Amino acid sequence: MILNALAHTGLTQHMKCECFCLMNSISNYIAGAKAKAMINQSRENVARMVGGKAEDIIFTSGGTEANNLVLHTAVEHFRRSCRAAEQGEGHQNGSNGLPHIIASNVEHDSVKLVAEHLRRDGKADVTFVPVSKVTARVEVEDVIAEVRPNTCLISVMLANNETGVIMPVQEICQRVRSLNKQREQLRVLVHTDAAQALGKIRVDACELGVDYLTIVGHKFYAPRIGALYVNGPGTRTPLCPMLFGGGQERNFRPGTENTPMIAGLGKAAELVTSNLSEYESHMRSTKLYLEERLKAVFIDKIHFNNHYPGSDILPNTCNVSILGPTLQGWRVLSNCTRLLASVGAACHSDSGNRPSHILLSCGVPSEVAANALRLSVGRGTTKADVDAVVEDLRDTVRLLEGMD
Amino acid sequence: MILNALAHTGLTQHMKCECFCLMNSISNYIAGAKAKAMINQSRENVARMVGGKAEDIIFTSGGTEANNLVLHTAVEHFRRSCRAAEQGEGHQNGSNGLPHIIASNVEHDSVKLVAEHLRRDGKADVTFVPVSKVTARVEVEDVIAEVRPNTCLISVMLANNETGVIMPVQEICQRVRSLNKQREQLRVLVHTDAAQALGKIRVDACELGVDYLTIVGHKFYAPRIGALYVNGPGTRTPLCPMLFGGGQERNFRPGTENTPMIAGLGKAAELVTSNLSEYESHMRSTKLYLEERLKAVFIDKIHFNNHYPGSDILPNTCNVSILGPTLQGWRVLSNCTRLLASVGAACHSDSGNRPSHILLSCGVPSEVAANALRLSVGRGTTKADVDAVVEDLRDTVRLLEGMD
Repeated sequence: MILNALAHTGLTQHMKCECFCLMNSISNYIAGAKAKAMINQSRENVARMVGGKAEDIIFTSGGTEANNLVLHTAVEHFRRSCRAAEQGEGHQNGSNGLPHIIASNVEHDSVKLVAEHLRRDGKADVTFVPVSKVTARVEVEDVIAEVRPNTCLISVMLANNETGVIMPVQEICQRVRSLNKQREQLRVLVHTDAAQALGKIRVDACELGVDYLTIVGHKFYAPRIGALYVNGPGTRTPLCPMLFGGGQERNFRPGTENTPMIAGLGKAAELVTSNLSEYESHMRSTKLYLEERLKAVFIDKIHFNNHYPGSDILPNTCNVSILGPTLQGWRVLSNCTRLLASVGAACHSDSGNRPSHILLSCGVPSEVAANALRLSVGRGTTKADVDAVVEDLRDTVRLLEGMD
Repeated sequence: MILNALAHTGLTQHMKCECFCLMNSISNYIAGAKAKAMINQSRENVARMVGGKAEDIIFTSGGTEANNLVLHTAVEHFRRSCRAAEQGEGHQNGSNGLPHIIASNVEHDSVKLVAEHLRRDGKADVTFVPVSKVTARVEVEDVIAEVRPNTCLISVMLANNETGVIMPVQEICQRVRSLNKQREQLRVLVHTDAAQALGKIRVDACELGVDYLTIVGHKFYAPRIGALYVNGPGTRTPLCPMLFGGGQERNFRPGTENTPMIAGLGKAAELVTSNLSEYESHMRSTKLYLEERLKAVFIDKIHFNNHYPGSDILPNTCNVSILGPTLQGWRVLSNCTRLLASVGAACHSDSGNRPSHILLSCGVPSEVAANALRLSVGRGTTKADVDAVVEDLRDTVRLLEGMD
């Protein structure tokens, strides 16, 4: 059925790609063109979801790669700015020494560990700005206060994965824009990891004013790939590839395109664009119902770990502790019969029962944080589901308190 | 339907992964465990296909990433060896200056362009060893002659994508093993990109003796992801991650696992392991039939670009030129009616009609290389398909010669 042919002509070295020449030619030609059209359509859909243009979207293997790519780019951006300064293209404006990266202290590991790796390797200075223990947000002034002449990147997630607290990314961008006007040499780039926010709240990269925005498929019911929004990749905003190869994604991210998953990502993005307000209000009302039920059943034993004055929270995230010396999160989950935690399946290790460093950073006392449960509702979660979960929790808590 | 819960306890910072706590708990718990089991099964199947152990397989987003990861590791391996030498753990044995990488001059762009990038960036010395114009292979002696005290990697593909010529990787590994015994400080690592060879000929990483072997799914009817075989990653053989994140793939390649595609990769690997000899003999006989038909129809106008004395060729690859001043590959393909080339769809640019640098490297004269067509047969290609292709080519050649 299949006969592939490569016309050796017509291809430069940088375009070493296969020209499939197929027996069942018309249908296969159409299939190839269709795949290409699908990728383009997906790019447009993903762009629309985040308020960008199609050319601003680079498909990646996932959020981890997208985040790594941003930090890699920042370091390269710094190197190039230094080189430009050395070549006398303008004044030297502090762009010496190591690049400096600012991130919040509650970023995902795919930002945090990259930054730590760069620091350990002597490739970058890093400042992790602590979130406020009052608001659980990283505060604009705290971030801006850390900017140095050699700062090349600020990376602050749009919403935290454990608390759902929404960060003041737009305000940070506004301040950085003013700062950048005064900096002659090294522009401060701003990145936000929108993994948790997409599909839950409206996300508009232009409105936010970010240079980079990370998109993670499986967080909004898409397949397990991702994308990076870059405001004009290679033109307005630098983007330095980590991988080299066959030229796909305009050389920013080579490798044969994962067409089926890209198609899925585009479809899921289209659904978000069309139905976001419906998803959002369903999740919000379901979560409110969950919180009410928890309060009704556990009364003064309940503590919400993500209620902070003045901070907005994602509509889906409920982070709660049921207070009591025997009610540690892992204990509750492993004793629930219906609300069964897949601790063994989803986690990579079962060592340590330490409370979340993120909750501790937000000012949650250690003994409360130890009992934390994150209960996130989804598009399809019903009130009956909530009732069943709360019942399960009540039974488990009774059991655990009885064993005391 | 979905309620996710994160037990904040039980997780260290390096294990920040979500413990999904689902309403429809039993079935979802089982689904999670099933996904994990599937990944493990795939890892075993992929390992078996290449004669390795499950722990030697690191899933990646594709061959491009796998190849990039090997070159990245080689540079890091060199740095670490230097550091170890500086710390006086043994004699200094030439491991100063830049790392040196050896590759053939017909490698895929995901090796070649990485090496060129490292050289351009001042991060590595690179030697591209030309293939012999007699055998179209890179010759063992030529490779070994280039080894320097600072050589840290030799990367030679197992079979070339355009000619199908099989490279003497096993012999290179044997020679490198002897060399390494004499080198106190810096071990020379050997990598082979087996993208083209897998599913077509038997591939056994242990028998070959390589440290790294690149696996590309869509080359053997699997989905578009890949894997890297590493002979004891992090123990016997260094492996330095390019990405940092949530700890998946034992931190060698973090990012949420692409479970469905990994499952497909494993299934396709299983099919290769079970049916390779059948696939191989079918492709070989179909290709021979194709070559016979081409000879019968075009007689002395036909030139096979991948027939070299003493060199073995993959069973599926036919690389042929039909000689004549108007029969350039791109012309033939774009005039075929049934054998329709998707030049526009599959290629990233239509600039230039230059003959393949790979064929030129193999000693194919420029005017012959300009007419080259790669006609690769697949598992399902029938003699009737071959007849139709040859007929199509005959009509096209008549047409093009008539227009002369």
